[in-house]
Amino acid sequence: MNIDEILTRFEMGNLSKEDAVKMLSADGTLEMAYAKLDIGRKKRQGFPEVVYCSGKKDDYLLEIFKKLYELNGEVLGTRASKEQYELLKNELPQIQFDEESSILKIEAPEKKHIGKVVVCTAGTADIPVAKEAAEVAEFMGANVEKLFDVGVSGIHRLFHNLDIFNDASCVIAVAGMEGALASIVAGLVSCPVIAVPTSVGYGASFNGISALLTMLNSCANCIATVNIDNGYGAGVLASQINRQTYEK
Amino acid sequence: MNIDEILTRFEMGNLSKEDAVKMLSADGTLEMAYAKLDIGRKKRQGFPEVVYCSGKKDDYLLEIFKKLYELNGEVLGTRASKEQYELLKNELPQIQFDEESSILKIEAPEKKHIGKVVVCTAGTADIPVAKEAAEVAEFMGANVEKLFDVGVSGIHRLFHNLDIFNDASCVIAVAGMEGALASIVAGLVSCPVIAVPTSVGYGASFNGISALLTMLNSCANCIATVNIDNGYGAGVLASQINRQTYEK
Amino acid sequence: MNIDEILTRFEMGNLSKEDAVKMLSADGTLEMAYAKLDIGRKKRQGFPEVVYCSGKKDDYLLEIFKKLYELNGEVLGTRASKEQYELLKNELPQIQFDEESSILKIEAPEKKHIGKVVVCTAGTADIPVAKEAAEVAEFMGANVEKLFDVGVSGIHRLFHNLDIFNDASCVIAVAGMEGALASIVAGLVSCPVIAVPTSVGYGASFNGISALLTMLNSCANCIATVNIDNGYGAGVLASQINRQTYEK
Amino acid sequence: MNIDEILTRFEMGNLSKEDAVKMLSADGTLEMAYAKLDIGRKKRQGFPEVVYCSGKKDDYLLEIFKKLYELNGEVLGTRASKEQYELLKNELPQIQFDEESSILKIEAPEKKHIGKVVVCTAGTADIPVAKEAAEVAEFMGANVEKLFDVGVSGIHRLFHNLDIFNDASCVIAVAGMEGALASIVAGLVSCPVIAVPTSVGYGASFNGISALLTMLNSCANCIATVNIDNGYGAGVLASQINRQTYEK
Amino acid sequence: MNIDEILTRFEMGNLSKEDAVKMLSADGTLEMAYAKLDIGRKKRQGFPEVVYCSGKKDDYLLEIFKKLYELNGEVLGTRASKEQYELLKNELPQIQFDEESSILKIEAPEKKHIGKVVVCTAGTADIPVAKEAAEVAEFMGANVEKLFDVGVSGIHRLFHNLDIFNDASCVIAVAGMEGALASIVAGLVSCPVIAVPTSVGYGASFNGISALLTMLNSCANCIATVNIDNGYGAGVLASQINRQTYEK
Amino acid sequence: MNIDEILTRFEMGNLSKEDAVKMLSADGTLEMAYAKLDIGRKKRQGFPEVVYCSGKKDDYLLEIFKKLYELNGEVLGTRASKEQYELLKNELPQIQFDEESSILKIEAPEKKHIGKVVVCTAGTADIPVAKEAAEVAEFMGANVEKLFDVGVSGIHRLFHNLDIFNDASCVIAVAGMEGALASIVAGLVSCPVIAVPTSVGYGASFNGISALLTMLNSCANCIATVNIDNGYGAGVLASQINRQTYEK
Amino acid sequence: MNIDEILTRFEMGNLSKEDAVKMLSADGTLEMAYAKLDIGRKKRQGFPEVVYCSGKKDDYLLEIFKKLYELNGEVLGTRASKEQYELLKNELPQIQFDEESSILKIEAPEKKHIGKVVVCTAGTADIPVAKEAAEVAEFMGANVEKLFDVGVSGIHRLFHNLDIFNDASCVIAVAGMEGALASIVAGLVSCPVIAVPTSVGYGASFNGISALLTMLNSCANCIATVNIDNGYGAGVLASQINRQTYEK
Amino acid sequence: MNIDEILTRFEMGNLSKEDAVKMLSADGTLEMAYAKLDIGRKKRQGFPEVVYCSGKKDDYLLEIFKKLYELNGEVLGTRASKEQYELLKNELPQIQFDEESSILKIEAPEKKHIGKVVVCTAGTADIPVAKEAAEVAEFMGANVEKLFDVGVSGIHRLFHNLDIFNDASCVIAVAGMEGALASIVAGLVSCPVIAVPTSVGYGASFNGISALLTMLNSCANCIATVNIDNGYGAGVLASQINRQTYEK
Repeated sequence: MNIDEILTRFEMGNLSKEDAVKMLSADGTLEMAYAKLDIGRKKRQGFPEVVYCSGKKDDYLLEIFKKLYELNGEVLGTRASKEQYELLKNELPQIQFDEESSILKIEAPEKKHIGKVVVCTAGTADIPVAKEAAEVAEFMGANVEKLFDVGVSGIHRLFHNLDIFNDASCVIAVAGMEGALASIVAGLVSCPVIAVPTSVGYGASFNGISALLTMLNSCANCIATVNIDNGYGAGVLASQINRQTYEK
Repeated sequence: MNIDEILTRFEMGNLSKEDAVKMLSADGTLEMAYAKLDIGRKKRQGFPEVVYCSGKKDDYLLEIFKKLYELNGEVLGTRASKEQYELLKNELPQIQFDEESSILKIEAPEKKHIGKVVVCTAGTADIPVAKEAAEVAEFMGANVEKLFDVGVSGIHRLFHNLDIFNDASCVIAVAGMEGALASIVAGLVSCPVIAVPTSVGYGASFNGISALLTMLNSCANCIATVNIDNGYGAGVLASQINRQTYEK
Repeated sequence: MNIDEILTRFEMGNLSKEDAVKMLSADGTLEMAYAKLDIGRKKRQGFPEVVYCSGKKDDYLLEIFKKLYELNGEVLGTRASKEQYELLKNELPQIQFDEESSILKIEAPEKKHIGKVVVCTAGTADIPVAKEAAEVAEFMGANVEKLFDVGVSGIHRLFHNLDIFNDASCVIAVAGMEGALASIVAGLVSCPVIAVPTSVGYGASFNGISALLTMLNSCANCIATVNIDNGYGAGVLASQINRQTYEK
Repeated sequence: MNIDEILTRFEMGNLSKEDAVKMLSADGTLEMAYAKLDIGRKKRQGFPEVVYCSGKKDDYLLEIFKKLYELNGEVLGTRASKEQYELLKNELPQIQFDEESSILKIEAPEKKHIGKVVVCTAGTADIPVAKEAAEVAEFMGANVEKLFDVGVSGIHRLFHNLDIFNDASCVIAVAGMEGALASIVAGLVSCPVIAVPTSVGYGASFNGISALLTMLNSCANCIATVNIDNGYGAGVLASQINRQTYEK
Repeated sequence: MNIDEILTRFEMGNLSKEDAVKMLSADGTLEMAYAKLDIGRKKRQGFPEVVYCSGKKDDYLLEIFKKLYELNGEVLGTRASKEQYELLKNELPQIQFDEESSILKIEAPEKKHIGKVVVCTAGTADIPVAKEAAEVAEFMGANVEKLFDVGVSGIHRLFHNLDIFNDASCVIAVAGMEGALASIVAGLVSCPVIAVPTSVGYGASFNGISALLTMLNSCANCIATVNIDNGYGAGVLASQINRQTYEK
Repeated sequence: MNIDEILTRFEMGNLSKEDAVKMLSADGTLEMAYAKLDIGRKKRQGFPEVVYCSGKKDDYLLEIFKKLYELNGEVLGTRASKEQYELLKNELPQIQFDEESSILKIEAPEKKHIGKVVVCTAGTADIPVAKEAAEVAEFMGANVEKLFDVGVSGIHRLFHNLDIFNDASCVIAVAGMEGALASIVAGLVSCPVIAVPTSVGYGASFNGISALLTMLNSCANCIATVNIDNGYGAGVLASQINRQTYEK
Repeated sequence: MNIDEILTRFEMGNLSKEDAVKMLSADGTLEMAYAKLDIGRKKRQGFPEVVYCSGKKDDYLLEIFKKLYELNGEVLGTRASKEQYELLKNELPQIQFDEESSILKIEAPEKKHIGKVVVCTAGTADIPVAKEAAEVAEFMGANVEKLFDVGVSGIHRLFHNLDIFNDASCVIAVAGMEGALASIVAGLVSCPVIAVPTSVGYGASFNGISALLTMLNSCANCIATVNIDNGYGAGVLASQINRQTYEK
Repeated sequence: MNIDEILTRFEMGNLSKEDAVKMLSADGTLEMAYAKLDIGRKKRQGFPEVVYCSGKKDDYLLEIFKKLYELNGEVLGTRASKEQYELLKNELPQIQFDEESSILKIEAPEKKHIGKVVVCTAGTADIPVAKEAAEVAEFMGANVEKLFDVGVSGIHRLFHNLDIFNDASCVIAVAGMEGALASIVAGLVSCPVIAVPTSVGYGASFNGISALLTMLNSCANCIATVNIDNGYGAGVLASQINRQTYEK
């Protein structure tokens, strides 16, 4: 399917032959000043490269966004600032920015979404990370449902909403502080649970280490953990599991 | 009441005048070879000194057990080995030993128990620490009820048993690995919860650090934490809260 | 008693029927944008939800304060900024702010206080955390006495004030740096001691880790520890122990 | 399908009505001495409970193995010792033991395997953990292929074997020391990669912390991490992803 | 050769006799206010002292730069700010500043470069540290080639450029996050690899600890590690190895 | 001698009778708003209380400085800011401020200094901490000599200055980064060495942990360590050792 | 005086000329197989080398003991085992062994002791480390007094014994677990306090880290800390301070 | 040269054609049970694979030793036990074992050694690691000189032996505890210094972490660090630097 998309864009004149050749090679690389864009990634792994915006120089960010948009007809950036949004909007006016998740994107029109990924959080402070995960999973083609603020200090809020997990291919559980939500959920559902510790908390939460350890030591099954605050990684992985589950 | 007990023992001839005087002084001390027994503690804090048996020399352990038994008519030891039990049994034949909790004790006859303390565990491997807590709380005069193996990987096991928490003055929640049980319980009950992390687990549980951090970062209310594997400390604290709640 | 309060507020027309029903259910939840207020908590645990203000968006903070005030006739917020106080004061003019403890509150008129909780600190830099604990315990219905700046570098300052602990149901000991105060106090009193490590210190205090470890390893009895700088948690727990001790 | 299996076993007389009822309830529990077997797990999550053998008392281990075998017609234990194998063999002579992975099992006859999970390791010292993962995934119904000793000090060993990843639904990458293998693999394949850090190494490997951090910080996509040496967890998760991918 | 240079500068009148004497003594020291310039270092170790600019007072920085330039006919500073550059430019107009690497230098005219050092990075965010290493190695007399953005998430970018390592006397591998690049390279080349962990990353990268541990635990040969972000140290060491390899 | 000083100040009318009584009692305390000044300390320990200025409120700082000056005829403050200096100067015009060490003081006229304390540093960045130590030791009555910038990268700078240690009663060795200076010095001199780790460094210096561990693990004799950046503590201890050595 | 002792031993024929020459040189070294005995240390630092016995090979240990005894007429070893004692006793029958402190020694007859060093401990488990400190300080020429088992859980045991600190030149405070004793003592006495953390404790004591941090963060004056369990280092330092205080 | 050696062995009939082909390919691999011997390494990197013996199964160890010996005419194993030596001696009677360094080897006859590598240690307890480094460097073709027991508590032992560093191409500095030796040496010599922290020490040495951090934070130039106790890695790297320096 990825090959199909690339060929279609080439056929419609949206893609140069040179770029198409590189994209159709699993190890295609596009040399830029100081960077080597891994444009074979879509062919090799199913998702194009996503731009980690934080700390990128202005001119370089703009160049990458424009090139990736040209190649794929869409582009996604994470950890972007409002200033970066203002910068890019001048040349790419259709670009969209969500301040809470710090996501910057141009999405291909009429994108098809399949399956179901659930993103849940323990508290309201975990929402920025959760929305990053949700935005990424949607961009990668998954239907996403959200269930926020259902942490263990009032666990009935989770139990009243168990229906949401039906038919989910994957759950992303986002929590800081003691991070217990992921274990609870993983004990209740039958699909994989991706645990995302957040840096929410203070004192002995150690910027997310407490939640990270809780999740790694979960005695529930079917759970694995990503880096602290790594909503992006959870979103990509969830959308891949979702795709494998629902695409056929 | 503690003063009352001391006077009764003195009146009945079970206690010498010299010892009684020291015990009735908040800062009474009994000099032994290399040690200074804090025998004013019962007057000052309501509980006599408890013997931490691990690593004590044989002759010294025996001497302390005999003296404390003489003073109080009962004596409690924690972290004892079977060898220490064999040793003490020769001179104190009424002594009792529980291998799972490593508790060694001679309990005063017809001890009155009041109130209710609940001790619950996440898994079966947490039981030795939980039993230490339970034995200590009972020795200090509390009624104790136990609810073991109700961890979050099958949380319905806890929900099916919520009745046990009715009228409890205090809950001791014992858990290793991810340690989430304490938070769940503290979100459900209205009395204080004492969280005891255990060193049960492997890898990133770091011998109880993971569970300790989980408990310290709990977003539930009315919860405080003791040292890893410190069933003893939880038992004493719970029995004190229980006494304050039910004695009047 | 909590049920009583809710019914009285309903009877007096201060509470809608719909809200009263939810509050009288242990698992009552009030759905707000992105948040699920746990309004059954008062029924379930005896204390209403308290607002952690730090980082909350303005409009959301205002909405929650107004709703909780409407439901309970009082409301408490922790870790608030002066800006948040200015914001809320416009719509809730009776709101009070204490800059040192960062507490924001509207307290029900003529609140009854019972029993006695003592809050003591090692140094003057620990006072903000201590005052958070004191304010919370008072709001939850306890009489509170304070003893500040009695740390171990001049331990006579503590010994000259031992009378303050008489009849206390609970002591909150707040200390940073080496955190030894909690152990000293717990060796002197007969009620529970809640130890609160603070992030006061520099170098090898590691933002409170040193004091936290000191407290967890205390060789005194009847002591348990909460998270670094968690005056709030200590205050709630102390007021609950105080209530159990003095309410009957 | 799980319900189907339970009914079939009941119909054939292999399962009592009482047990079948519990197994068909998502929150079915079987009370044993000190333990509460979560026998609703198969219905709820698709896999029956697996026995963590290490540290279990002899009589208790035997009782659980017999009961689980009775209920499910098969049973799996991890981290078992040779002594435990000898013990169980007396009463369950069909039991099998693999010393390298410490797996103890009775497998249902004619089990069907589907899909494909690849388990690869960096070195030969990682094989015990990798085999635990492989045995568990196979027991849970996946076809498993192995690729051992392909770590980054001689990376051509991996590149010569890339074909093995074709059609895999999931890769389990097992590595200690610097743990770089998981990142490399995740950059090459398009399915999810479950990273398992091992405690193999010395000095600054800190019993697996180094490999754990490497994996959590991977800049590749579609990767998540489990606890150090947790081959079991990786095996269950992989078989679930495999089932979702291939079952329909 | 170093002695040769010093004598030449003395002979040409660029160096006072007093300074030349000190420089020709391995333990020559130049006393300045609060500092003791180690000007025997060039004789003793082959490289003159380099100025760590960060945090130096303005007048002191200027004095040191001028003195070292006077002594050696060239001078190098690391971790300099733009403000420091502006300051020094007034009195030393020939000074050059590279903002990305924060290097400030006056280089002797017609410097001879020998051999070959390769500096490679995993990502673009590692470039500032890599450029510091490259600038230093060049200043110390090595030819330097650069290969940036060849990290393991798209490892073909490295494999397409293996030619660059031919004839290198030393490779400097710079990487943050999971830091795997250094191991890969060390498994492919036959010369020493100096691994430089960077503080690039977030969450469990712990400001470079993850990459540092990865590199220390590398199972490849011929690799050693320097401090996090220590491009300077890597550059000096590489140029020394390069000199030993190519000078004779 | 301390008693002598107090009596003299009282006799000369510089001290009220009430204050003199308290100062002559080892447990004298002066109650201020929220603070309890330990004014018996001079009698008890030989040095009056020193003010830790950082973070103190303006009005409170002023009140303490004035009171301590009144009591002792001199006063010392550490970690003061320039703003605090401006504030105090208005009411205490004779106050002196050293910006590098952040020391604020009014020193009694014609103070006698005895003995000899040497303060040495590894680098120039360690000077602020070293000067804090030196200022404190001088204020407490010691002669102080300084030897800065003699770290191990050019160890001849230390060896050329060994004479400075003759007749010293104590050496304070201040070093960040690898902190090796303290060990070297302690292997060369015969008096006590107080090691002060500083937070100077980057990367794996972890804000002084590296230097702290180096010093704690020193294989030299007659060395002990204080907290990171704790020049004050080193200065007090050194002046006490110096006094014991030279006073008789 | 050290020179005096060496000359006397030479004059009496107890020392060869060759050895005397080396001992009278501050940098005298005695080459042995694989070791270089630093026999100038007595001249340079006032104390001869002490043997760290743990892990030394039998023949090597014997050789060193005999040589040091020959040179100094006395010899001291720390961390010795009973087996090592048996071994040495054969050739050096006058050797003495104290099992609790693991000290092995031959002491010069009629050694003069001066001044006073106090060694105190928090608990009985800290005694082995305390006795190592005491034995070393006595061997180095100090009078030593001991005060054991006076920890903060019964602080009156310390207050009843404050007289012991009169005229002490130095206090060694030894404590594990929460380690608060050192701070308390340092707030009460006017001489230097050397704090020795011990590895006594469990759980979050982390083998002495908790006590170490407590001591480093002490808010008392005149205190410095040595490595965990380093009774030896404390003993040497205390005897040096004692010597400086009382020798003149 | 490596190719030369391989061809010579083939020509002389010591090597089969099949094996020679693989060895002459940089990515030659020899498939064994569960392992993939990287036999192209000699061609690719100049050194054949070395066997890490610890934990290897007997039959597997024997097979690998025999095969590597057959291919290369020599073989080296590290971290071997005496039992493994006994095992291998039966079939490879010419094998040699050094118990102190745990090295097991058969060395090619008449091996040529070039250049000079110096291995020095701080104490005698560091010798096992130092000898591992020395043995490996010699096996790889370097002349090695040793300088043991020259740590910083008696630094004159190092200064008396500076001549040993003349003409060295590389110094390996091995130290535990505070690890300062490496910095001192690196400040004195002009060749690269490879720092090897050892796990020698106790308490706050944390099994080598203290020495590791000291070395990483060294303010000397031309130094890089390997893993704790990694004598092997230091030896290989040193011999490579030595070869580059002296081979031409």
